[in-house]
Amino acid sequence: MKIRFVTSNDGKAREVGAMLEPLGHEVERVNTTYPELQVDTLEAVVNYGLDWLSAKLEHPFIVDDSGLFVHSLKGFPGVYSAYVYKTLGYEGVLKLLEGKEDRSARFECCAGLMLDGKRHIFTGVTEGSIIEKPRGSDGFGFDPVFVPSGTSQTFAEMPLEIKNRISHRGRAFSALASHLNQEGHSGRGD
Amino acid sequence: MKIRFVTSNDGKAREVGAMLEPLGHEVERVNTTYPELQVDTLEAVVNYGLDWLSAKLEHPFIVDDSGLFVHSLKGFPGVYSAYVYKTLGYEGVLKLLEGKEDRSARFECCAGLMLDGKRHIFTGVTEGSIIEKPRGSDGFGFDPVFVPSGTSQTFAEMPLEIKNRISHRGRAFSALASHLNQEGHSGRGD
Repeated sequence: MKIRFVTSNDGKAREVGAMLEPLGHEVERVNTTYPELQVDTLEAVVNYGLDWLSAKLEHPFIVDDSGLFVHSLKGFPGVYSAYVYKTLGYEGVLKLLEGKEDRSARFECCAGLMLDGKRHIFTGVTEGSIIEKPRGSDGFGFDPVFVPSGTSQTFAEMPLEIKNRISHRGRAFSALASHLNQEGHSGRGD
Repeated sequence: MKIRFVTSNDGKAREVGAMLEPLGHEVERVNTTYPELQVDTLEAVVNYGLDWLSAKLEHPFIVDDSGLFVHSLKGFPGVYSAYVYKTLGYEGVLKLLEGKEDRSARFECCAGLMLDGKRHIFTGVTEGSIIEKPRGSDGFGFDPVFVPSGTSQTFAEMPLEIKNRISHRGRAFSALASHLNQEGHSGRGD
């Protein structure tokens, strides 16, 4: 099935294509923008985006938002991760964590699917911690300083197929893909 | 004239009342919310708020947004100042500035007035710098660490009537009050 994916972020488009295309779905990237709200949760951002785009884009389409939530910083940078990355970089987050014992954090992704006029929300979470010095050059954003629990590599050191298996975005989109298949919208022969 | 001021912030409500009421305007605080956008400028946030509230609130009404823009942090925390204050506090900004020579910053306020179906935008800016240790207990937000250029006190050390004369918010609302008077909407006898 052909699905529109709304994003202006090259890295996200690459990751989502690599997950859904092997399942037979054609991902058409839509490089448009929608109003992103200043709210506390990714789900609220995504819901508003789905509402706003619903009359403007052909269904099915997907909107997603993701963020890094650092526990000892009360969840900062959270839903504002893209802005904080642009202004402070991961260097800023490392600076804020200097001297803090608790370096645990989680990445969250919320993917919203509008399908046949109905909305479906899928959330993926990856727990982990912020290391002291960046490692790796793949991925984007805060990937070089985040090591998922139970692994020793940062997101930026992992090949994309490994990252997609354990990442917040991988988990959210894997749930989305399962839903498509259950609904009978399998990619192949659809 | 009776003007509705939309805010959930007690400190802002107090400051704006202290500016407009002596001019004879009755300020009615409206404790409602409107979608605040993730955008780069205060003006875009305010314009969206005016649009959104225009059909819901009796005119005239005022929406404002303000932020602290630290030059060496690429404008951080900017339009996200309220969120950053809530999560990192001014301590976070002090931490991010450790070792930086340039501690200059500006406070900006954008006030939007919807009057007789037309919108008017007023901007106030106060240049200054971020000191190393907080001083004073008046004001709110980042006031204890911000010293306006040409003064030696922080915003949090100044009596409200002094702060309102030189602050970003004072400047924006003073322009707004002048506009009301020019338009013949003076407070007294209106």
